[in-house]
Amino acid sequence: MKPGRRALANAIRVLSMDAVERANSGHPGAPMGMADIAEVLWNGHLRHNPGNPRWPDRDRFVLSNGHGSMLLYSLLHLSGYDLPVEELKRFRQLHSRTPGHPEYGYTPGVETTTGPLGQGLANAVGMALAERLLAADFNRPGQAIVDHRTYAFVGDGCLMEGISHEVCSLAGTLGLGKLIVFYDDNGISIDGEVAGWFSDDTPARFRAYGWQVVEAVDGHDASALEAALAAAKADTERPTLICCKTTIGFGAPTKAGSHDCHGAPLGGEEIAAAREALDWPHAPFEVPAQIARAWDARERGAALERDWRQRFDDYARAYPALAAELERRLAGELPADWGARRDALIAGCQQAARELATRKSSQQVLEALGPLLPELLGGSADLAPSNLTRWSGSRSVGGEAPGGNYIHYGVREFGMSAMMNGLALHGGFIPYGGTFLMFMEYARNAVRMAALMKLRAVFVYTHDSIGLGEDGPTHQPVEQLASLRQTPNLETWRPCDETETAVAWCAALERRDGPSALVLSRQNLPAAARDAGQRAAIERGAYVLLDCPGTPELILLASGSEVALALAAAQALGEAGRAVRVVSVPCLERFERQAADYREAVLPSAVRARVAVEMARPESWHRYVGLDGAVLGMEGFGESAPAAELFRHFGFSVENLLARAQAVLAGLEGRA
Amino acid sequence: MKPGRRALANAIRVLSMDAVERANSGHPGAPMGMADIAEVLWNGHLRHNPGNPRWPDRDRFVLSNGHGSMLLYSLLHLSGYDLPVEELKRFRQLHSRTPGHPEYGYTPGVETTTGPLGQGLANAVGMALAERLLAADFNRPGQAIVDHRTYAFVGDGCLMEGISHEVCSLAGTLGLGKLIVFYDDNGISIDGEVAGWFSDDTPARFRAYGWQVVEAVDGHDASALEAALAAAKADTERPTLICCKTTIGFGAPTKAGSHDCHGAPLGGEEIAAAREALDWPHAPFEVPAQIARAWDARERGAALERDWRQRFDDYARAYPALAAELERRLAGELPADWGARRDALIAGCQQAARELATRKSSQQVLEALGPLLPELLGGSADLAPSNLTRWSGSRSVGGEAPGGNYIHYGVREFGMSAMMNGLALHGGFIPYGGTFLMFMEYARNAVRMAALMKLRAVFVYTHDSIGLGEDGPTHQPVEQLASLRQTPNLETWRPCDETETAVAWCAALERRDGPSALVLSRQNLPAAARDAGQRAAIERGAYVLLDCPGTPELILLASGSEVALALAAAQALGEAGRAVRVVSVPCLERFERQAADYREAVLPSAVRARVAVEMARPESWHRYVGLDGAVLGMEGFGESAPAAELFRHFGFSVENLLARAQAVLAGLEGRA
Repeated sequence: MKPGRRALANAIRVLSMDAVERANSGHPGAPMGMADIAEVLWNGHLRHNPGNPRWPDRDRFVLSNGHGSMLLYSLLHLSGYDLPVEELKRFRQLHSRTPGHPEYGYTPGVETTTGPLGQGLANAVGMALAERLLAADFNRPGQAIVDHRTYAFVGDGCLMEGISHEVCSLAGTLGLGKLIVFYDDNGISIDGEVAGWFSDDTPARFRAYGWQVVEAVDGHDASALEAALAAAKADTERPTLICCKTTIGFGAPTKAGSHDCHGAPLGGEEIAAAREALDWPHAPFEVPAQIARAWDARERGAALERDWRQRFDDYARAYPALAAELERRLAGELPADWGARRDALIAGCQQAARELATRKSSQQVLEALGPLLPELLGGSADLAPSNLTRWSGSRSVGGEAPGGNYIHYGVREFGMSAMMNGLALHGGFIPYGGTFLMFMEYARNAVRMAALMKLRAVFVYTHDSIGLGEDGPTHQPVEQLASLRQTPNLETWRPCDETETAVAWCAALERRDGPSALVLSRQNLPAAARDAGQRAAIERGAYVLLDCPGTPELILLASGSEVALALAAAQALGEAGRAVRVVSVPCLERFERQAADYREAVLPSAVRARVAVEMARPESWHRYVGLDGAVLGMEGFGESAPAAELFRHFGFSVENLLARAQAVLAGLEGRA
Repeated sequence: MKPGRRALANAIRVLSMDAVERANSGHPGAPMGMADIAEVLWNGHLRHNPGNPRWPDRDRFVLSNGHGSMLLYSLLHLSGYDLPVEELKRFRQLHSRTPGHPEYGYTPGVETTTGPLGQGLANAVGMALAERLLAADFNRPGQAIVDHRTYAFVGDGCLMEGISHEVCSLAGTLGLGKLIVFYDDNGISIDGEVAGWFSDDTPARFRAYGWQVVEAVDGHDASALEAALAAAKADTERPTLICCKTTIGFGAPTKAGSHDCHGAPLGGEEIAAAREALDWPHAPFEVPAQIARAWDARERGAALERDWRQRFDDYARAYPALAAELERRLAGELPADWGARRDALIAGCQQAARELATRKSSQQVLEALGPLLPELLGGSADLAPSNLTRWSGSRSVGGEAPGGNYIHYGVREFGMSAMMNGLALHGGFIPYGGTFLMFMEYARNAVRMAALMKLRAVFVYTHDSIGLGEDGPTHQPVEQLASLRQTPNLETWRPCDETETAVAWCAALERRDGPSALVLSRQNLPAAARDAGQRAAIERGAYVLLDCPGTPELILLASGSEVALALAAAQALGEAGRAVRVVSVPCLERFERQAADYREAVLPSAVRARVAVEMARPESWHRYVGLDGAVLGMEGFGESAPAAELFRHFGFSVENLLARAQAVLAGLEGRA
C-alpha cells in the first residue's frame, strides 16, 4: 500500500524532532508545522534533481525561516540528496553538513544560507528575477531553456521584518509570476502569540503589492494545498502568496500551537507522545522502506534533467554561440579575452591621468567593461545619478522591453543587497548595486551574508567621507569603512584615482569566492603617477606609491582621497631633507593576505615612524602604525558644510599631517 | 487684507528655493511640493509654542523626508522660533543652525534628526507611543495633562524603506490614534518616476495595518487638507495616513513635477520664473510684513502653553507627588536616592559572586532597578525569553490594561531601535530594547542616529560571540563589537560578570548625552574577585583586575567572557615566575576618555608585551598592543557546534593564550 501523504509528512516531523532532541538544541516547531506543505510541494511540484543539485534549470527552494533547518535537511535526505542519515544525527555538530541554520556550500541542495529573518525571501525574489532576466537573454521561440520556478517558505518573523516589504513590493511591481511563497501563518513567535504585535491583514498587504494571494489555506490539508499551488502556477503575471494556517509543532500533543516548541527540544516524554499521536512506531532516524521509496526523487529528478539536457542540445545546435555564452555565464567564467581587456583598461587609465571623482571613474570602468560582460547586472537604491552606476549600455529592467541589465531597486538598500545575493546564487549574473556608503548600514547584514556565502557581488558605495559636504553627519561615513573591512571574506576597496578604481573593479569581477565593496568619492581626485611595477602592485592591496632613496625614516599610509594629502606631505618632508615613503592602501584585506616578505618590503618592521591618514575612524590603522605611530582620522561625527571647509575644520590639511609626522619622528628620536 | 493660504505657502516655497540657491546645494522640490500641506497644518492645527520649543505637551512634528529641511527651517523661521533669517541665509554652512538635514540639538524646534529615510516616521511612532504611555501613567480623570498629537511628513522614499513597514504595522496594532502622517505622493524619486519601482497601493497597504487612510487628497487644496485633518482627528482609535497628491517643486515653471528639482538648486532663471508664477515680487529672504504677521505663532503658542501650565498647576495641587514625578521624568533626572541604590546594587553583586550569564545578570539588575525607575520602558524584537529583557514588574504594552512598561516590538529590530529614539526624544522615558548582537546590524543606522542625537537609549545585545554555540555563523557576531565601539558617542559595554553588568547598566542610565550598548553573553560566566577600589574603577572602562608585584612583564587585556581566560593564563604565567597584569576592559570608549595618568597607570607605556583576547575581530585592540603585542581574536566566521567545541576549535583556550603570550615575550626579549 502506498503510504498516505500525512505519513510522508510525518517522516519530516519525526526526523526533525529527533534530530533536535539528539543535538539538544534547535527548532522543532516550524518543521513539524510546515511538514504537510513541504510534502505537497516537494513530492508533487518541485522540479529538481537530487543527483545534481547544480542542474541549472532546477526550481529553487528557499527556507526563509531558516531556524526550521531540520525541515530542509529532512527533505534533502528523504528525496535523495547526498545527505545520509548520519549527517542528520550530527545536526548542529562541528563540521557536519547539518549546521544549525542552512548554510550555502555546506549541504548539497541548500540554495542559500538563511536564519537572519526576511533575507531568504529577498534571495528568492532575486532568484526569480534572475530566472526572468536570463530567460529574456537566452530563450528563443519554442526553446525555453531557462524556465523554472522559485519557491520560498516564510514565517511570521520574515513578514514582520522590513525587508519583506522592500522586496515583495518590488516583486509585485516587476510581476515575478514564477515566484511562489508559502506563508506559515501559525500565530506564534518567540514572545508568544503574535496577535499582540503583528495584526496585519497580510493578504490585503500583499494584494496592495500587486500579488496574487491565496488565503486561508489549511496548511495541513494536502488537497487544499494542491489547489493553492494550481492557482499559483496558473497566474504567470503576478507572484503568489499562499497563506497557510498551520499549527506550530503539529503532532506534539501538549506543546503544539505554543511557542514552547519553537526553539527548544521537545523532551523525551513529549517525543514519545508525539510518536504515538503521529502513529510512528519507528526508532529515531529510522524511515520505513515504503516511505523512503515514496520520497525518493532521484529517478524523477534524473529524468527531468535528462529531458532538459536534450532540449539544451537542440538549442545548442540551433544557437551554438548563445549556448556557449549561457554555459560561460552559468559557470561564472569571464570571457576569454578578459585578461587583455583588463590590462588595456588599466594601462589606459594610467595614461589618461584624469582628475575625476572615483564614482565617475567607476562609471568609466563600466563603460569599458560593460559591453564585454553581459552578465553585469547593475542597479542602485534610487541613487543612480549620484552613484553613477548606469552606463550607456544600461537597459532598465521592467521597462517596455523584456529583460534588461539595470535594476531600479527603489529606496530599498537592504532589499537590493539581499536580492543581489539571490541573483548571484542563481547564477548567470554578476550583480552590482549602489548606494551611499552611509546607507550600506541599512543593508549591512546582507553584505555580511554575501561574504559568508562567498558570493560574487559588487557593492558600490559612493559619497565615502565628509568629502560629500553639505548633506551633513547623517550622510557622512565615519565608522562604516572599518565595519566593512572587518567583515570576514569581504574585500573593501577605496581607490585613490581612476587607475586604482579600474583595478578594484577588475579584482571584484575576477574574485570567485566572495563579494567586494567599492568605496568611492563624491569629489574629484587627482591621478597619481605610477610605473608599470607600481601599477601591477595595486592589486596586492597596498604598495609603495612614492619612495625615497635608502631606508625611509617615515612611512605615510593612506587610502582613497587622502593619498593626495600623503603625497603632498611627503614632498614637503622630502624638501626638508626627510626620507619619506608613501604607501597607498586601496585594499587592506588584500594586503593582509600577501606573503610576509612583500608586506615587510612595503612596511619594513624597522621603520617605526608611521602615520596613516584617512577621513574615517582610525581603528583600521593601528595595526600598522603601532604604539609609536599616529593616525590622522575622524573621531567624531561630521558636519554640514562645503567639503573644503570640512577638510580644514577636521584637520585634513598638509600642515596638520606634517605636524603629526613631525611629532611621531620627534617622539621616536626622543626615545632613541 | 489677510493674505491667502497660497500666499502663505508661497513664503515657504520662495525661502526654500532661495536658500538652496544661495547654498548652491540642497533640495527645493519637497519643500515647494509640501508647502500647502505644511501651511494648513502649522497655521491651523499644530499646537506648539515657538517661544518654548521644550514645552512638554506640544504637538510633535517630524519631517521624515529630511532632505526637505528648508521646509522645516522656513516653518520655524516664519512661525517665530529663534531662527532668524540670517540663519536661513547660512543654510548648509559650517556651524549654522540650518544644516543640510534637520539636526536635533542644532535648531530650536527640530524634534529629531532626519535624512536617513524612514527613520523619522519610526521616531514619530515612538513619540506617539510615548505620549500614549505617559498619558496612561499620569493623566487623571478630567486632567489630561499629557495630551498631544504627533504629525509626520513622509515621502515615497520613507514608504519604500522596510522600516516603514515595521513601525506602521506596529502602530496599527497598537492603535496609535494620535499619530497623523502626511504622505507626499509626488510620484518622483531620484531615479525618476517611481511607477517603475514603486507601484504599491499604499492606501490598501496601510489599511492592512489597521490604519485609517484618507486617500486622493489634493495636496495643494487647503480645504481638502482641512477635511482630511478633521477626519484624522476624529478617529482616536487608529493612526491616520493622509495620502496627498502633490507636484514636486510646485511653482517652478519648467522643473516642477520632475526629479530635476529634487536635489539641486533651480538656477537663477527658473527662480525668476517661479517668482513670477508664484506672484512673489519680493527680494530673496524678504517676507512682506502681512505675510510674516499671519505666520507668527508666538502669541497663540504662548497662550496654549499658558493654558496648559494652569491646568498643570491644578493637577499638581490635586496630585503633588504625581506632578513632581512627571517633572522629574520629563527632566530626565534619576530619583533622589539613586546613588545609594546604585552603590548598594553593585556592592551586592560583588558580594553575591554568582556565576551567571551576563544576560541573566542584566535581568537581575532590572529586577533591582526596575521598581526604582518607572521611566524604564523595555522591550525586545521578539526575543524576550532569550534577551531576558523582561523582569517581574514588566507590564506588556497593548495588553488589557492601558499603559505598560514593556513593548513587544515583534521581529522588527530596526523599527524597535528607531522607535526607541522617538521614545527618548519625546521625554519621560528611558527606553531599552533587546535583540541578538548579530541583529543589531538590521538596526545599525538607528543606533548611530541615537549616538548622533545624544539620546539616552540602552541597546541590550545578547548572544555576543561564538559562545552562543549551535545557531552557527549567521548568529555569531565577529565584527559587530568593533562596529559598535567605533560609533562616535556610543558607549559599548561588554561586562565579564554580574558586577560589571550592574556598573554597565548604571553607567548607561546615568549617561545624559548618548546611548549605550550592553553586550551580553548567552553562557554562564564566573564572578571575578575585586576590592573596593577595583569595583569603583569599573566605570572607568578599563582597570587592573589582577596585578603582580612590581612592574609587569606582560599585560593581558580582555573583555567579557574572555576575562576568565586571561585570569587563568595570568595565574599559570605567575606560577611560572612571570609578572603578569590582567586588565579587564568592559568599555573601551570610557577608558579612552580617562585622564592620561590613569591610562598610563593601567597600561604603562614601558610595558610593550601586551596580549589582548576577545572572541571578535582584533581591530579594537591593536591600539593597545601595538606592533610588538598580539591579539587572540576571530579572523573569520564562526561555526555551528556546541560552544565548548567552538572555543577549542577557534583557539580560545588557556594553552593557546599562553602560547601567544610566550611568543610576544620571546619576541621582545629577542629584540632587547
